[in-house]
Amino acid sequence: MLSLPPGQRLVAATHNPGKAREIAALLDGRFETVAAGVLGLAEPEETEATFMGNAVLKARAAADACGLVSIADDSGLSVRALGGQPGVLSARWAERETDGQRDVGMAMARIEAALKAVETTDHAAWFTCALAVAWPDGPVVCVEGRIEGRLAFPGRGLNGFGYDPVFVAEGMNQTFGELAPEHKDAISHRARAFAKLKAALF
Amino acid sequence: MLSLPPGQRLVAATHNPGKAREIAALLDGRFETVAAGVLGLAEPEETEATFMGNAVLKARAAADACGLVSIADDSGLSVRALGGQPGVLSARWAERETDGQRDVGMAMARIEAALKAVETTDHAAWFTCALAVAWPDGPVVCVEGRIEGRLAFPGRGLNGFGYDPVFVAEGMNQTFGELAPEHKDAISHRARAFAKLKAALF
Repeated sequence: MLSLPPGQRLVAATHNPGKAREIAALLDGRFETVAAGVLGLAEPEETEATFMGNAVLKARAAADACGLVSIADDSGLSVRALGGQPGVLSARWAERETDGQRDVGMAMARIEAALKAVETTDHAAWFTCALAVAWPDGPVVCVEGRIEGRLAFPGRGLNGFGYDPVFVAEGMNQTFGELAPEHKDAISHRARAFAKLKAALF
Repeated sequence: MLSLPPGQRLVAATHNPGKAREIAALLDGRFETVAAGVLGLAEPEETEATFMGNAVLKARAAADACGLVSIADDSGLSVRALGGQPGVLSARWAERETDGQRDVGMAMARIEAALKAVETTDHAAWFTCALAVAWPDGPVVCVEGRIEGRLAFPGRGLNGFGYDPVFVAEGMNQTFGELAPEHKDAISHRARAFAKLKAALF
């Protein structure tokens, strides 16, 4: 039987200590969580075509490198009329070619232009969050949370991050960028993924 | 907590009923196991670059398509001097371009030629078996078993299948093709993967 006992030490497969703290909070503070970057672990190449594949790959790399149970996530926006793009490349689409800096405005404009190019009125899209927990030389457990919705251009709202300003969840009128953070956090793909992870391992 | 209770119905993500029976036996006959092909499920495209990624993808596709807990495997041979090739393409390397028929002799010759081309005496290689169990709309558990060894040309032995005639496990002199089936089954990558899966979920 697989479970995560309270007090378990967890390595978050990220180089961002803020993200590691956020993951610790989303796991109800039950675990001592440290960022892989703090331990000096290298980030593996994300070779996979699916969110789950990349989450599994990152969690395994961290667990195998430091011998501790690890947790990784992989998230992104998929647009139906673009065959699911940008998908696992959501972060890459937001990197400027010139200097590699993050520019999500550019990425949102790129999606809008791609939709115009395929001459569609289908603006269906969804956010996905995959989470993976890996035991060193042992099993990996992964889950996926999703929220369906549609794209709305131009973007609206200053909350959230990434593609939030252009995403309207099913049954709503406000974009994720307009929602109060606690509202978005209650319904988001990440919330759904963490709920599934807890149902599986708590 | 995640576990597989005895008597659980399992769909094996394969179109080969013989393989489904073999999986049932490797799980100690604890589960009622049916092949996905028998249920008329389509085989998903194996898009991932890792064995675990493809096992997860196949298990999820089967579980989501039929609403039953599913099990999938992905296996292959990796050659160190070829950067891990053929790896997840092990089956593809054994397909004849002309008619798509399976021809493992051709694949073994292709590996031997590739090693000659890179002018190496490094014949280190390993077999990997990834297994994934997926719950419909729920978590996926995956494990990986590996056996290290080296390649020996020309191939020897008529037992086993696939690349077995050219693979000699660490500490042995006989190829997998020369080993008695019960001997190979006790030490193989598949045996190790199933042992890990049972340790995790039984």
